Amino acid sequence: MQSDPELEQLRGSIDNLDAAIICLLAERFKVTQQVGVLKKERGLAAADPEREVEQIARLRRLAEAANLDPEFAEKWLTFVVSEVVRHHEAIAEAD
Amino acid sequence: MQSDPELEQLRGSIDNLDAAIICLLAERFKVTQQVGVLKKERGLAAADPEREVEQIARLRRLAEAANLDPEFAEKWLTFVVSEVVRHHEAIAEAD
Repeated sequence: MQSDPELEQLRGSIDNLDAAIICLLAERFKVTQQVGVLKKERGLAAADPEREVEQIARLRRLAEAANLDPEFAEKWLTFVVSEVVRHHEAIAEAD
Repeated sequence: MQSDPELEQLRGSIDNLDAAIICLLAERFKVTQQVGVLKKERGLAAADPEREVEQIARLRRLAEAANLDPEFAEKWLTFVVSEVVRHHEAIAEAD
């Protein structure tokens, strides 16, 4: 059993932060779903490499300012964007 | 050029949400760094599979309530936790 009061308190903070992040990710997906519909209407490609380069550069700067490993921020965005592109492709393929 | 006002507005929202998430992830890593130090002091393992099972079940419930794909929430947590465990192992190995 890995249980002691100090560890439990820290884990409570992690759980609260995760709940907040999950809610923000849910909002993010609502917006990217709208982007997916718009891209389908406009006949635009699901992925946009130029936009992704800008996003990565911006998030790395934000991560540095927040004292978060910029490499992790980049890997994180790549992970989220790959999921979004998968959704966009599904929207584009839908009748 | 994939640029039109409606798309730019949606992308502005994505960028704002990403900035908020990056700040919360920075806080999350501060807390997990503390957990890593505590685990080293207590001689506990870097990974805790039982805790991860609970976290995944909880985040899946939160995701469903927020209308986010629970599969994505699980994949997201697995991605973040694997990064944290990597950090914990580095802390445990440090002199």
